Amino acid sequence: MKKKFLSRILGLLVLCTVASGAARAQSLFGFDDETAAAQLALEAEFDASLSAAEQEEWLRILSRDPHHVGSAEGRAVVDFVAARFEEWGYEVEIAEYQVLFPSPRTRELELVAPYRYTAGLAEDSLAEDPSTFRVDNLLPPYNAFSTDGEVEGELVFVNYGTPADYEILERYGISVEGKIAIARYGGSWRGIKPKLAGEKGAVGTIIYSDPADDGYGAGDTYPEGPYKHESGVQRGSVMDMPTYPGDPLTPFIGATSEAQRLALEDAPTITEIPVLPISYRDALPLLQAMGGEVVPREWRGGLPITYHLGPGPARVRLKLEFNWDMVPAYNVIARLAGSEYPDEWVIRGNHHDGWNHGAADPISGLVALMGEAKALAELAAEGKGPKRSVVYAAWDSEEQGLIGSTEWVEHHAAQLDDHAVAYINTDGNSRGFVNIGGSHVLEKMANEVMRDVEDPQTGVSVADRRRARIEVNGSSQARDELQRRSDLRISPLGSGSDYSPFLQHLGIASLNISFGGEGSDGSYHTLYDTYEHYTRFRDPGLTYNVTLAQVAGRATMRLANAPRLPFEFVGLADNVSLYLSEIETLADTMREETLANNARIDSGVYALALDPTRSLVAPLKKAEVPHFNFAPLKNALAELEQAAQEYAEHSRGAAAATERVNKLLYTSERELTRDDGLPGRPWFRHHIYAPGFYTGYGVKTLPGVREAIEERQYELAEQEIHVAAEVIAGMARRIRELTAQ
Amino acid sequence: MKKKFLSRILGLLVLCTVASGAARAQSLFGFDDETAAAQLALEAEFDASLSAAEQEEWLRILSRDPHHVGSAEGRAVVDFVAARFEEWGYEVEIAEYQVLFPSPRTRELELVAPYRYTAGLAEDSLAEDPSTFRVDNLLPPYNAFSTDGEVEGELVFVNYGTPADYEILERYGISVEGKIAIARYGGSWRGIKPKLAGEKGAVGTIIYSDPADDGYGAGDTYPEGPYKHESGVQRGSVMDMPTYPGDPLTPFIGATSEAQRLALEDAPTITEIPVLPISYRDALPLLQAMGGEVVPREWRGGLPITYHLGPGPARVRLKLEFNWDMVPAYNVIARLAGSEYPDEWVIRGNHHDGWNHGAADPISGLVALMGEAKALAELAAEGKGPKRSVVYAAWDSEEQGLIGSTEWVEHHAAQLDDHAVAYINTDGNSRGFVNIGGSHVLEKMANEVMRDVEDPQTGVSVADRRRARIEVNGSSQARDELQRRSDLRISPLGSGSDYSPFLQHLGIASLNISFGGEGSDGSYHTLYDTYEHYTRFRDPGLTYNVTLAQVAGRATMRLANAPRLPFEFVGLADNVSLYLSEIETLADTMREETLANNARIDSGVYALALDPTRSLVAPLKKAEVPHFNFAPLKNALAELEQAAQEYAEHSRGAAAATERVNKLLYTSERELTRDDGLPGRPWFRHHIYAPGFYTGYGVKTLPGVREAIEERQYELAEQEIHVAAEVIAGMARRIRELTAQ
Repeated sequence: MKKKFLSRILGLLVLCTVASGAARAQSLFGFDDETAAAQLALEAEFDASLSAAEQEEWLRILSRDPHHVGSAEGRAVVDFVAARFEEWGYEVEIAEYQVLFPSPRTRELELVAPYRYTAGLAEDSLAEDPSTFRVDNLLPPYNAFSTDGEVEGELVFVNYGTPADYEILERYGISVEGKIAIARYGGSWRGIKPKLAGEKGAVGTIIYSDPADDGYGAGDTYPEGPYKHESGVQRGSVMDMPTYPGDPLTPFIGATSEAQRLALEDAPTITEIPVLPISYRDALPLLQAMGGEVVPREWRGGLPITYHLGPGPARVRLKLEFNWDMVPAYNVIARLAGSEYPDEWVIRGNHHDGWNHGAADPISGLVALMGEAKALAELAAEGKGPKRSVVYAAWDSEEQGLIGSTEWVEHHAAQLDDHAVAYINTDGNSRGFVNIGGSHVLEKMANEVMRDVEDPQTGVSVADRRRARIEVNGSSQARDELQRRSDLRISPLGSGSDYSPFLQHLGIASLNISFGGEGSDGSYHTLYDTYEHYTRFRDPGLTYNVTLAQVAGRATMRLANAPRLPFEFVGLADNVSLYLSEIETLADTMREETLANNARIDSGVYALALDPTRSLVAPLKKAEVPHFNFAPLKNALAELEQAAQEYAEHSRGAAAATERVNKLLYTSERELTRDDGLPGRPWFRHHIYAPGFYTGYGVKTLPGVREAIEERQYELAEQEIHVAAEVIAGMARRIRELTAQ
Repeated sequence: MKKKFLSRILGLLVLCTVASGAARAQSLFGFDDETAAAQLALEAEFDASLSAAEQEEWLRILSRDPHHVGSAEGRAVVDFVAARFEEWGYEVEIAEYQVLFPSPRTRELELVAPYRYTAGLAEDSLAEDPSTFRVDNLLPPYNAFSTDGEVEGELVFVNYGTPADYEILERYGISVEGKIAIARYGGSWRGIKPKLAGEKGAVGTIIYSDPADDGYGAGDTYPEGPYKHESGVQRGSVMDMPTYPGDPLTPFIGATSEAQRLALEDAPTITEIPVLPISYRDALPLLQAMGGEVVPREWRGGLPITYHLGPGPARVRLKLEFNWDMVPAYNVIARLAGSEYPDEWVIRGNHHDGWNHGAADPISGLVALMGEAKALAELAAEGKGPKRSVVYAAWDSEEQGLIGSTEWVEHHAAQLDDHAVAYINTDGNSRGFVNIGGSHVLEKMANEVMRDVEDPQTGVSVADRRRARIEVNGSSQARDELQRRSDLRISPLGSGSDYSPFLQHLGIASLNISFGGEGSDGSYHTLYDTYEHYTRFRDPGLTYNVTLAQVAGRATMRLANAPRLPFEFVGLADNVSLYLSEIETLADTMREETLANNARIDSGVYALALDPTRSLVAPLKKAEVPHFNFAPLKNALAELEQAAQEYAEHSRGAAAATERVNKLLYTSERELTRDDGLPGRPWFRHHIYAPGFYTGYGVKTLPGVREAIEERQYELAEQEIHVAAEVIAGMARRIRELTAQ
């Protein structure tokens, strides 16, 4: 303990000493000394081309009006972006798909008992923010892909509406059968709330933003501060994305005009029950009217009331009708052909559609991408263009369910499988610390990029600033890793932005990059995600926009120019090993807790410990957890570790690589997929990373195995261990093939 | 791990099997088979005499009106109680003291900037509770022993106002120098808040009840539910009780009319700065007017605003003037002479004064005590009276600072030192689980009592119900102990009720007994602590009042009748050993954290991790923590453990004991005291248990050593290790003397 401790202290001092920031003569993974020096010089030129003022001007223009898919303003954004790419010398295509787009026709929410209240369901325009008056084209607050319906029922408060929350409700003897569930945002992706409520028999769902989470509880509210105005409503899709994202009518295929479509009523990703998001101003009278038991301590929110579970006496009527229109979704695809390997594509994307003005989401990320593209084009004009082809993409209809990107990926699956080296995604950005998630084969390269970009507020590298944050705020495990591990871990990807079809459907190595942590707010998917809000609170001066462009630009250019693609497998093996140990711990913990809880239930101890005047009773017994045979997975992992080490030795200092080697490298991520996908959701083919079936955006690593254990499907777990083992063994074979070249 | 786990499961099943509840043929510690059987028969008769209806009637009468010290209504309570004791055959004395009693003459609190608001400072009478209209004699909300003063200044939000909170404020660059601190109730005893604010230079303190803690955040508010009404204010003493409790003018001596008194201006336990408690209704406009940084996440309360640290722009004027009257405090002392050992006194007390109507605090405990006294008198009338003398005491002016009890104890110190066997205290009660705190020499007896009293809601013993609660809600350490340890731990005592002078000033072994956990509310020290509130929410039917009488009555009678006093030392040694290990862990943790934090500060990592646009900076470096020589304490503890084992062997089954042995037993607790008391506070003589100097009511075990380390007074810590070692070695010698008898 002591020794570890002292080494940590020493590590800190070392961190301080080396933290000097700017790029200097560095080795670059995948490059030899000469090409590395050229690449670093190129990056310095690239940096010099980036302009915060230019990005701010684009941000102002592109977030002037609401610009959702299918709108004239959305088309104007497409045209503006396409025109810029054309100006800069890109070969531009507007890839159009015909996609289902529900927009609200009727939205009614009324408390009918014990007193009447009609929800306003509208956001206030604020004198302090002129953008909030430009609302002609505004989509009112709603959840896309809620089903139509008119329902009435008593309210039940379901907290975040997660599986664990329903277990608590069961202990209170409360069912949502025939009721309307009212859930707060957070704790899971929003789409999980109506999905689970519907599975439990609820007839409708209301989702509200609790002020404790991102309203006045978190900080001053808009326009005084950045947090959620009392009228603010988080819009968002509730499509069942963990089953498949994209146009609900065209799973697996591109939504071209001639595509064969499912009938609307057969689309499995539209909710079973109607669901509507509301503000905390509208939620207050509803929650105030509820009775029944007081909620558990952890469920309390920030409204000035006592929260009750219900059911009733609050009773609401909810009526929702949508225009189920087919609209064109336009992806802007801009290509710059590679000078040496034009058939190897590095793809860099960000969506362009917004729920509203979308200054943060997505325009802040889009203007960084545009800055990168412009700078890259300038280099190309000087004869310093990329060796591989670079494809910039601005996606449409991300907000409704990654629709633009998914349709394009499905449409071009065969070509992408063949040509796509990697996909680099961004989305909303703000001030603070670098966050990179993605495929672990790219972890080493991502670390070199973070090492080489300077944080604009402190002058150290963005990697060192992130290390400092972990040192001050991280878990003890994360702090310890700072010393044990030279690379920062990049986080595994679940879902929530356009990388999902690339990574999880096709097995294209992907990264998702953003900054944040110092620009927190409550504007997400509300009327208040405006230019004014962004430039006052999220990133004044757009300094972190330029920094984002430096990071994403370097990642793009290094992938485009490296003689040997900077894919690395030792870090992959290390991360997979971590996930496996997490799953073993999960199984052990579940086993022990199940035994202990079942014994407690049998012993009758709950009846003695719980207040007999309240309705809370003991939990139900659960199926005991067997010991699983993890050996196949461990054996495969051992092979992967050995193969990864061998390739690391083999390729050390050997930057030159044949096209065949590079292709074996960039298609290696495909080895982690299987054509028949995950159990029950064949669209998701990646067996290391997936969004959780009951968490939504939240990632599940080794998802087949992990979710089977979590769901207590023990036979399935054993089968999935074998599948995962085969996938990992396949990766090991691929790496051996590489070493043999 | 696994083995431990399975044994826990088995233990649970055993718990279930043995949990049958009612008393049956049991051995009783300190009794032989014959006397145990007689004692158990006596207790069955005692139980049969207890009447919930009678206690409820006394509760109704005694909580009809506000009845604070010095009031006519207080005197009426004294007379009623004294008359009952006389009726029942007790020798009754009304022990009168002349004590300082500040009552408010002027209370003004006004927000003067940025807008005006005059605080109401009054509680609403509620149609649903007739008692709340009987307010002729009501003491308005105030803190007793606040100094007089008129101050004006900007507000600074200090959270709970603990030392840790001020460290956070320092990191924000915020000082309370010349400001008015606004603190929320909780986190420490209220008196600590103005004490520490004054030490930091504040000119005044306001304390408010945050609705998150015991208002609408916790549950439905009065009169719909039991929690704090928006106008409710927690009154309470802010006398510096950790220095000494009791009349501030007569430390160490009884406040008889002829006692030599300090001048008012020399009394060290009156606050340095004025302090006033307010409701959350009055706090809202003040907190809403504050600016500056948003508070840290953990500091947020339940009002529908963003909490800010200040200072200002909110500026308040606070004016407080008190009548510094001398009033008579009346303790009712009722004696029943022992049939065999009249010079050995078992003392059983509860205070009678209330801040208001005081239904819960203190009348619920007082009527249990009266029920016990009446039942005991009935047994005595049948010739089954106690073998030792029993002294019932109803204390006055507890609310202002344990004044009645402290003055009586100081006045009769010499006799008590000689005759007092033990002191058993109760105070407010409610529905739920048994809580016993006290001297660990009485832990074994307390466990036998808990074993033998049935919980009225479940039919198992109150011990088993408490075990069940630990099993379901306890920490893993507490759960593990259920299996490892046959006795439940009783908690060490800090301060907060009338046991303090007995235990901590004179070293009289003490117990404090209550039930609770299912009658939580926000009525404490407010206008709403009424008969109506108590019987609706805290303990309808007063079933736990009868149970309290059964527990406290058994403890009193067993101490009164045991042939050999049921003092036990193995449990004491085990608890002291736990405290020592806690202190070693404390020192190790402080040492490691200090090193790590100092290194972090030196490394500059905070400057990188913290948001440069906010004012929060790195903490200050702290003095490194040396290794302490705990060996003297460990050697003494080893002696204690050995001596305790020897006495346990020696006395096993040997119930008969001489008067000399019994005196050596009951005066053994005196060994744990030293005449010169704790560093800086000589009144507190006990070296195992004391209230914390900066926590107030919260206990510090091995306080000399623990507080010296916490305060980083390292030389003092070494000295105090020697003092504690001597105290413990003295106890070991005493036990050896006992074994040698």
